[in-house]
This record gives sequence, structure tokens and C-alpha cells, in this order.
Amino acid sequence: MTASVVVLSGGLDSTVCLALATQNGTVTALTFDYGQRHRVELERAEAIARSYNAEHLLVTLDASAWGGSALTDPSIDVPNFGDPGDEIPVTYVPARNLIFLSIAMGVAEARRAGEVWIGVNALDYSGYPDCRPEFIASFAATAALALKRGVQGDPIAIRTPLVDKTKADIVRLGLEVGAPLHLTWSCYRGQARPCGECDACHLRAKGFAEAGVADPALR
Amino acid sequence: MTASVVVLSGGLDSTVCLALATQNGTVTALTFDYGQRHRVELERAEAIARSYNAEHLLVTLDASAWGGSALTDPSIDVPNFGDPGDEIPVTYVPARNLIFLSIAMGVAEARRAGEVWIGVNALDYSGYPDCRPEFIASFAATAALALKRGVQGDPIAIRTPLVDKTKADIVRLGLEVGAPLHLTWSCYRGQARPCGECDACHLRAKGFAEAGVADPALR
Repeated sequence: MTASVVVLSGGLDSTVCLALATQNGTVTALTFDYGQRHRVELERAEAIARSYNAEHLLVTLDASAWGGSALTDPSIDVPNFGDPGDEIPVTYVPARNLIFLSIAMGVAEARRAGEVWIGVNALDYSGYPDCRPEFIASFAATAALALKRGVQGDPIAIRTPLVDKTKADIVRLGLEVGAPLHLTWSCYRGQARPCGECDACHLRAKGFAEAGVADPALR
Repeated sequence: MTASVVVLSGGLDSTVCLALATQNGTVTALTFDYGQRHRVELERAEAIARSYNAEHLLVTLDASAWGGSALTDPSIDVPNFGDPGDEIPVTYVPARNLIFLSIAMGVAEARRAGEVWIGVNALDYSGYPDCRPEFIASFAATAALALKRGVQGDPIAIRTPLVDKTKADIVRLGLEVGAPLHLTWSCYRGQARPCGECDACHLRAKGFAEAGVADPALR
């Protein structure tokens, strides 16, 4: 049995990733309170980790102190899907996965876990550069140079089981492994119900539609 | 004039690094409260940044929540210099510079700074793998893949002006550029005065002795 650290936002992808990791060994679910406006995902992440009896570590790192993203700066509006904008949208958070993976590596080394899992996906995604497989591969090599474990010849592996899957594939896989999809939260807007209009809502709806199933979180 | 983000612990090396960066443009000094036992360095960092009229950003990230280091876990003693132990001592903090540099990159991108400066040194050092130039070079390449700026062909540079210097060189350079060495704090033990016995105290004393000057922080 492998011990692993799983980055869990409380969204669809990270929840399916957690479900897969739990089939592989003991898991520490790692969630970041980074000052995101969609704070409801933090409660969902906790409930999801609890549903697997996994240790849940909530790390606070207030990225709103430096800003640069619609997700952490209330003065920047979250755009709707299809709104004109750059290739990389304003919901991009500078260095988010770089920071999250770095902390996950520190936690993994301290807890003697051999793997870090992250549900990045570069197919049905928002174009964030830190979700691409070339970033993940480069990060793994860098982390091996930074960590005691790497220097000692036993680097911590990074697992990205969803990287080449469509959102519909991820929905199907989640249902297959019994992931608690009804608890997941994707919407970028911090309202009582998903807005249905932002990039995250759009990608999620597309995935469920293509998989031919109703989204259990919208019931 | 270049805008830069400087990782400032409040120790000797990071203070000299800050002094050099201020000669190069406007600076944001970035200090981490990571649950370190030598908390006095946080006050020193603030005073040092203030002495340069530099913006000081204090980021809290409680690494004691996952542990794995004598610097964040009160149940692990800080060894004296020369105590038997591994090549990488127990004062190593898992993934520390990986995490600090990642956050510094996020801050730099959000603030539109073109450079991140860090006072790592791989000559008179404690053997931490995340101080070595091969780690820094690999990190810069990884960050360029993670960041919007990198994807857009304008990556954020990492400057390590002290990487190949002895501690005596760093002391001399600090005096030359008028760095406030009297405000710096190196000791790993969180006592009222430096212990004189830990690795950090030992390396610092060696540097001042070899430079032939008295340590102004010990007056």
C-alpha cells in the first residue's frame, strides 16, 4: 500500500482523482484556502475527504494579499464562458499549481508519502499553463532536486490520472469508481448555487451532457 | 529600473541580497512566517525592509501543520554544529525553497515584477538541497512553464547573486554596500540572543572571522 497526498479542491476532477488514489493506498487530502471567492468548495472538500475517511489537511495561504486573479480579487469580475478575453482567462491564479504542488511535496516528504496526486487536465480546461503535462514533468524533475528524498534517490512521484481525459471521460470514471460527485463544486462564483455561466460551470455541464447523465450536484 | 521580489528571511544572506536588489530597482521584500521557532527573524526582516523603504509582504504559511523539521517541530531539538547526523541535517525544512520561490513567482507575476531574488548559497551552507544552483536553474525552467508570463515569452528571471560566494565574501559585500548587518538574525534557536552553537551561528561566526570584522549584531 502506497501513502499519497492528493490535492483536493472539492471540484469534479480532484474528487475523481481522490477516488482513484484511495484505491491505491492511504491518502492525505490537501485543500488550500487561498482566499478564493468560491469558498463553498472548502466545505465540499472536507465532506468529500470525510466520505473516504481520509485525513484532511486544510492549508491557509492568502493569495488575495498579492492578487492578480479574478478568483481572489473582488474588484475583477469572473467572466462568463465565451466572453472575449485573452487565451489565458482572468480566472488564472498566478503560480497556483506551482505553489500547491510545492506544498504538497513538502507535506508528502514530511509524512513519508511516496506519491502526490493532482487532477490536472489539459483537454477540457481553461487554458491555464500550470495544468499542462509539460509543466508537471518539469516540476517533478525540479522537486527531485529540491527534496531530501530526491537527493537520496527516492523521489516522490506525481500522478496525474486525468491529464489526457475529456470531461465526459472524467464523469464516467467518477461514476464507475463511486466518487461522491453530488458533493463536488466547480462554479467560480461564490453564490448559493452554481451560476451556470462561468467557464467552470460550462466545462462541467459539457462533461455531464456528453456522458449522458444528469449532474447529481444540481438536483 | 527593474521591479523585483526579494525573499527576505532576516538573515545575513537574504539581507545582503536585498541590498543588492535595491541598487537595481524597486523591491518588494517577501518574508514567510512558516511557524519557525526563531520568530525573531520576522521582526528583523520587517526592520530591514523598512530601512530600505521597501514594501514588506509577510506571508503566513504554517508548515508546523505537517512538520518534518527541527525548525518547525518543537519535539525535534536543533543540533549543535558538529553533532553527528545525516549529510542533510534535521533543520532541513521539506520543500522550503521550492515553496518560497513558487510563492515569490506568484507575487512577482501579480505585481508585474521581472525578477525574483533569493540569497541562496551552496558554499558555506548546511547542505540543504534546495540551495544548490542546479535546483535554482531547474526551478526557473519549471516556473516558465507554469506562469502566464513564461508562456507569453517574458519569463520572470531568478537572481542568486550569492550562490558562489563564501560567507566571508558575503560579509565583505554586505559591508561594502552598506547592508544593515546589525539588524540581521541567523540563529535557529528562538532565544533572546544567538546561541553560538547551531549550524547557522557557526557559519555566520566563521564568515565574520574570515572577513576579519566583528559581528555588529553581537554588540
